Amino acid sequence: MEKELERYHNYPYQRISLQIAEEVIGMEESPVAALKRKRNSSIQVAVNLIKEGRAEALVSAGNTGAVVAITTLHLGLLPGVERAGIAIVIPTLKDPCLIIDVGANINPRPLHLFQYAIMAKVYAEQILQREKPRIGLLNIGEEESKGTNFVKETFSFFKSRNGNLLNFIGYIEGRDIFAGEVDCVVCDGFVGNIVLKVAESLGETITEMLRRELSRNIFSKSVSLLLKNRLKNLKKNLDYSEYGGAPLLGTQKICIIAHGASSAKAIKNAIRVAKEFGGHRINNNIVEALKKC
Amino acid sequence: MEKELERYHNYPYQRISLQIAEEVIGMEESPVAALKRKRNSSIQVAVNLIKEGRAEALVSAGNTGAVVAITTLHLGLLPGVERAGIAIVIPTLKDPCLIIDVGANINPRPLHLFQYAIMAKVYAEQILQREKPRIGLLNIGEEESKGTNFVKETFSFFKSRNGNLLNFIGYIEGRDIFAGEVDCVVCDGFVGNIVLKVAESLGETITEMLRRELSRNIFSKSVSLLLKNRLKNLKKNLDYSEYGGAPLLGTQKICIIAHGASSAKAIKNAIRVAKEFGGHRINNNIVEALKKC
Repeated sequence: MEKELERYHNYPYQRISLQIAEEVIGMEESPVAALKRKRNSSIQVAVNLIKEGRAEALVSAGNTGAVVAITTLHLGLLPGVERAGIAIVIPTLKDPCLIIDVGANINPRPLHLFQYAIMAKVYAEQILQREKPRIGLLNIGEEESKGTNFVKETFSFFKSRNGNLLNFIGYIEGRDIFAGEVDCVVCDGFVGNIVLKVAESLGETITEMLRRELSRNIFSKSVSLLLKNRLKNLKKNLDYSEYGGAPLLGTQKICIIAHGASSAKAIKNAIRVAKEFGGHRINNNIVEALKKC
Repeated sequence: MEKELERYHNYPYQRISLQIAEEVIGMEESPVAALKRKRNSSIQVAVNLIKEGRAEALVSAGNTGAVVAITTLHLGLLPGVERAGIAIVIPTLKDPCLIIDVGANINPRPLHLFQYAIMAKVYAEQILQREKPRIGLLNIGEEESKGTNFVKETFSFFKSRNGNLLNFIGYIEGRDIFAGEVDCVVCDGFVGNIVLKVAESLGETITEMLRRELSRNIFSKSVSLLLKNRLKNLKKNLDYSEYGGAPLLGTQKICIIAHGASSAKAIKNAIRVAKEFGGHRINNNIVEALKKC
């Protein structure tokens, strides 16, 4: 690591300290097994630094389940929070939108989703500067009769517990997400993770289809060159790494989860998100909001 | 209706007969309630014509739940089939891919998904001309430890019942769908419906983002005009109406479900799909394949 860093001549060595982490939690490992067996993974070492007060935030592109398990166990959850949830900001036709949960909790209870909505509201207010963020519950139709029993129970839970806490607009459909109809989308981590991965890959697929269309003949090839910069702007709009990592909301301290395939820029932006998170009093506000439920 | 048709001077009046359907099942109505109360909806009238042998196929852009309920009750399911499933063909970076189920059965059992896989295999062989179609089970990771209990149970069910029936490649992730990694994706109707609607709307969103990028300055505006035809080709690739309606697999007779917002072209293509379906012996082959399980 030291040798690698020395290749960057003016890196701020005073501000970077290296820590030894001798074990690796593989992307395919079971989080619970890893939690017990590997005490010297980089995730565990970083969490220990936070516990000791030597670090303030964790940024990890490692095994998501392991990050969730280790931070929950060793840093703890905020008072009142039952489960942590991963929130990600995605681009839409209107303003960026927050989806929670995208993979921390694949078998949640209605209470968990309600708490995610509260956390999403605080995050949207503080980081995305939204007033009264509109919160939607992801379903397969907008009518009350639609959906699985779990979604219907969650809807009733929201109605019974909400009061004036949230600007809850009810069910939204898959098509409403990228149309930008709400500020925050709440769903279970299984559905949220699949939505996220479908969206990522479809963005790439469409860009590739367009590239193929454009390179089909010589005339198009010259147009294609002219378009290069325009496509770059578009890609930036669709590039999740631009938005930085995804905060794991509900944990004590700050925990930012980056994509397993993060570029250097994505890691830089994840660190920026951690810094922004620390600058705002999001965790305090989440605790205050939860006290009102 | 007669007046409307007469506006098309050379419509083939010998081949179109109008039937009276005095009631409408609204898109927001509960299918079960509609099934009991409305005996003269267009869906019910069409199904009656099939029962009487006066029609061979149903094409409907109406309330999907009502179509599933009415066809299941009044036409019946194929021998051995426990639940009908909606299959839709979507474009990918490689060949088009079939997803089943996208909304007929939001609370399935593992057996239902296994039967969907069998039906998808037959459809992919006969209509999409695939040899040994690759079948994937949609999950949030490729490792056996990942996923909800339902997905894990379904995976075990596939392993125990499959034998050599299916070319089952195991779990696939959301990102594999549009990359074209498999011929058929199997999932529950809740997740499938959300994937479909996210994909539809993201296609529109990206096209719109691109249009905005292109019209940002005068230079781009002229390039934009040149690109018009290229974008049209791309849109055709992403336009579900090009692929026609979605077959409701597992029902006796032929039932094609079209999008609630279908254009005239989409309805035309849905009728084409019904005709193709009738020309192949898909239902017979599904029954034969299910006998081997």
